[in-house]
Amino acid sequence: MFEQLGLIGCGLMGGSFALAAKKAGLVQRVVGYSKSPTTTDRARQLGVIDVEAPSALLAVSGADIVLLAVPVAATEATLKAIKHLVTPQMLIMDVGSTKADVVQAAQRALRDRVGSFVPAHPITGREVSGVEHADDSLYSGRQVILTPTEHTLLVQLQKAEDVWVALGCRVTSMLPEAHDMAFAAVSHLPHVLAFAMMNSITGQSDGDDFLSLAGPGFRDFTRIAAGDPKMWRDILLSNREELIAQSRLFRQALHAIEQAMEKGDAQALEDMLTLASKTRTHWRMGVQRGAKPR
Amino acid sequence: MFEQLGLIGCGLMGGSFALAAKKAGLVQRVVGYSKSPTTTDRARQLGVIDVEAPSALLAVSGADIVLLAVPVAATEATLKAIKHLVTPQMLIMDVGSTKADVVQAAQRALRDRVGSFVPAHPITGREVSGVEHADDSLYSGRQVILTPTEHTLLVQLQKAEDVWVALGCRVTSMLPEAHDMAFAAVSHLPHVLAFAMMNSITGQSDGDDFLSLAGPGFRDFTRIAAGDPKMWRDILLSNREELIAQSRLFRQALHAIEQAMEKGDAQALEDMLTLASKTRTHWRMGVQRGAKPR
Repeated sequence: MFEQLGLIGCGLMGGSFALAAKKAGLVQRVVGYSKSPTTTDRARQLGVIDVEAPSALLAVSGADIVLLAVPVAATEATLKAIKHLVTPQMLIMDVGSTKADVVQAAQRALRDRVGSFVPAHPITGREVSGVEHADDSLYSGRQVILTPTEHTLLVQLQKAEDVWVALGCRVTSMLPEAHDMAFAAVSHLPHVLAFAMMNSITGQSDGDDFLSLAGPGFRDFTRIAAGDPKMWRDILLSNREELIAQSRLFRQALHAIEQAMEKGDAQALEDMLTLASKTRTHWRMGVQRGAKPR
Repeated sequence: MFEQLGLIGCGLMGGSFALAAKKAGLVQRVVGYSKSPTTTDRARQLGVIDVEAPSALLAVSGADIVLLAVPVAATEATLKAIKHLVTPQMLIMDVGSTKADVVQAAQRALRDRVGSFVPAHPITGREVSGVEHADDSLYSGRQVILTPTEHTLLVQLQKAEDVWVALGCRVTSMLPEAHDMAFAAVSHLPHVLAFAMMNSITGQSDGDDFLSLAGPGFRDFTRIAAGDPKMWRDILLSNREELIAQSRLFRQALHAIEQAMEKGDAQALEDMLTLASKTRTHWRMGVQRGAKPR
């Protein structure tokens, strides 16, 4: 399907994409670049990439598909660096967790060449990062959200969809703003709460004792707090408006539960817990009740 | 080790204990009682108990070990119902998630016979409930907190410890109040946050759409929100003072993260996320750095 993948960013997300694309027979050759030469070197040693590129631009040279797997805040600079080699025949995607900022960055960086860029957000991740954890099944069975704009070339959008489907993903399209609102609610805020939970406990003098008693519920609840701090710093800053709006709604829901506790209103409390428990019990990951598939 | 287990409450926790105790050769026979006759019947059909008792008192008759696996709010009434058959030779334990209220309830209900009662909290659970999910490995490898008082008979405390060790648990003793403070932080508050998270999303007009996009991070973060509403209503009410104190500390930690976001203070934000991420990455379930083993 493609001759050469230009991979910019050889971490968990990028490395896993390269492995999965090769396994699926989507690409012949992977040319990779990472900001840290050690990472690029390691990626080649691990067989994640075939050839090391000394710059983002050189990773793109000769590629018919390009994946940007860099922190969202680095999107604009990276696209600027490769702009001169971008052609309408080339499919360029990112894997960032925020989309409105990425779309704007792409517009600014690529200008009349932005049609080749299809913003993508595969809904997957691990609490670990780095090319050592690259896994050819990371994307398998996951949802991928594409957020094309009116500038996106239809041919590239179609190719993007085919790529993710070939990796075993279900593909949905959304507006960038709708994407960011939804992910503030179901991903970014949960991360903020998990980070805050850890800091709240470690800030207490008995925090270490508390942590030594925590069980499987705590383990799963806080798993996402182990996420990469720099990556999440960028995501939280980039989507802060939606995130703060979601946090306000969350605080109201929390306050309602606390009020019932303080008043000793067992019935009101039970009603709220029942609603939450029922919703969570019936929820299944990736089952689309609301979002319209393309 | 024991002749007969009197099991009061044949749900997930009680049923799993019966299965595990039999498998470990700790008990010869299990006589079970549940408030709902259907549950007791089902427990017998599934081989979780050997004999159905028509009342809590009759489940205790002839037992040398008794396990109360009922909602914490039902502890006092249940202990009152069995009081007349409690002897100093009998080991009685509960499995409740709060301990100060359970200790007080036992004191009120059992009075001069309270020495047989060893309050216990095995740190385990599932997001499902009911005897159908009883599992002989539910307790294996978990921590169990015992919160004896000055009235507890040492011989029963030692037996309690032996029982849990035989089921593959690590046993720790704490004061009931210290237990409740720690579990407000690492269990009860995370549950409240997960419940509030679900309700915050379903309260929004686009909530269903948001949920259809949620991924594995959300799945793990909210797993505990599927907990049994009545059970958690009782736990939250019973431990509400510690819980509200923990919630206040949590809100401060959340506010600090939000302030850094609002100010666009990337360094402060990164520092807070780094602290949380490091703490969570190094945390291992059940590794006791602070709590003193008996």
